[in-house]
Amino acid sequence: MAWLQRPVRAVLLDISGVLKNCVDGKDVAIDGSVDAVNRLKASGVPVRFCTNETTTTRSKLVRRLQALGFNMKEEEVFPPAPTVCLILKERALRPHLLVHQDAMEDFAHIDQSSPNCVVLGDAQHDLTYENMNKAFQTLLALEKPVLFSMGQGKFYKEDNALVLDVGAYKAALEYACDLKAEVVGKPSESFFLSVVKDMGASPEDTVMVGDDIENDVGGAQKCGMRGVLVRTGKYRPSDENHPKVKPDGIVDNLAQAVDILLKQ
Amino acid sequence: MAWLQRPVRAVLLDISGVLKNCVDGKDVAIDGSVDAVNRLKASGVPVRFCTNETTTTRSKLVRRLQALGFNMKEEEVFPPAPTVCLILKERALRPHLLVHQDAMEDFAHIDQSSPNCVVLGDAQHDLTYENMNKAFQTLLALEKPVLFSMGQGKFYKEDNALVLDVGAYKAALEYACDLKAEVVGKPSESFFLSVVKDMGASPEDTVMVGDDIENDVGGAQKCGMRGVLVRTGKYRPSDENHPKVKPDGIVDNLAQAVDILLKQ
Repeated sequence: MAWLQRPVRAVLLDISGVLKNCVDGKDVAIDGSVDAVNRLKASGVPVRFCTNETTTTRSKLVRRLQALGFNMKEEEVFPPAPTVCLILKERALRPHLLVHQDAMEDFAHIDQSSPNCVVLGDAQHDLTYENMNKAFQTLLALEKPVLFSMGQGKFYKEDNALVLDVGAYKAALEYACDLKAEVVGKPSESFFLSVVKDMGASPEDTVMVGDDIENDVGGAQKCGMRGVLVRTGKYRPSDENHPKVKPDGIVDNLAQAVDILLKQ
Repeated sequence: MAWLQRPVRAVLLDISGVLKNCVDGKDVAIDGSVDAVNRLKASGVPVRFCTNETTTTRSKLVRRLQALGFNMKEEEVFPPAPTVCLILKERALRPHLLVHQDAMEDFAHIDQSSPNCVVLGDAQHDLTYENMNKAFQTLLALEKPVLFSMGQGKFYKEDNALVLDVGAYKAALEYACDLKAEVVGKPSESFFLSVVKDMGASPEDTVMVGDDIENDVGGAQKCGMRGVLVRTGKYRPSDENHPKVKPDGIVDNLAQAVDILLKQ
């Protein structure tokens, strides 16, 4: 296993498509993944959950995962919204939010009057023409338009279908407004490194396991981590011949990744 | 006037923002434009109307403009849909349509079973997350995905607001599917040249008048025509300092462009 030529001292796990899938509108744990997280944690390796999930708040996400049997605490889970809120405060920015209704609560403490930036998330069915126009008009009215995109994924799997992710709508606003969004979440290097730092680890010692060949695997590799692709979630066979990203390892699922890791 | 240093022997006119604006959901002729078209035609210069309008059929568009007093025939008006239909037939392609309900009729004679391509237009309020997903999934299921975009405008003016144009949604699908759309309509060179040919003119002798600095003015210039910008429609003062496109002329409106032209 190429990805075990160096010791693994810390592990980052993607959530959607690695721990669980969404089937018929409900979260379902992927076979063996609850046990895999338990075994990994029991081994003493630090583990963090690094997700671009923006369709709900962090606390609701964690409660849903706990209900599926996953052993995790809120402070081990890193979605983009809390980081966006930190940045907004640091830079005294007031957002117009184009985010999922169920995620609004994470921004409740942020001043949203007279917006001077836009925050875009995976608002799903709220990504209407009307709402996209509101975000667009907010940006166009600003002298220095600032767009934050919580992730830049192309698509993900939901109810056995691939559906558009926030990256597509980021591309739409970037094109219409002639700007480049600031991505918060994977594959942003500062985002990845802040999570690695939280484990007290170094990127060279860390492995990221995910189902997104570009943002999980490629993103981790760009930060000096190893990136392992799972054949679950939105994985497609063509990912194994991706023109730009070559995973350090490819496994059937998280359970197999942990089997291999614990044998090291 | 730089754009009159060579004689003008043919004129292409954009429609939306040059002949008329949309105000409170209704078309309103821009001051002096009905008379300007009459004067231009009376002078004997060939005139064609070159539009990326895809929110209605060609025949309904022409009837609406005639009702506003414009002197034009259907065969003088060139929107993207009829050209798309020709291409679909030539290449035996069956489209999934993500186009405006009011424009469907232009595609009624086209086989739409088992789609093997997607045609994207300015579907406005039908550019929902659900409909974007259907287009995306159609493309992703194809071995060789083909996306036609009827224009690639960034935005246009409607009811005194700037709203997203089809180009933003083209960018979204291109990003998510890792492909490049084929643009039919302005600023496609083959599209412009087919209209110039219809007038029996050459690009060097032709002037294009439009309110879109990139697609009308820049697009025409790339084909060897002169491009004149009007200060009506979606025009913004910053267009006069566009980083890439320098118009051959800038006029307050179509009436002024025709005044200048007829003095040549």
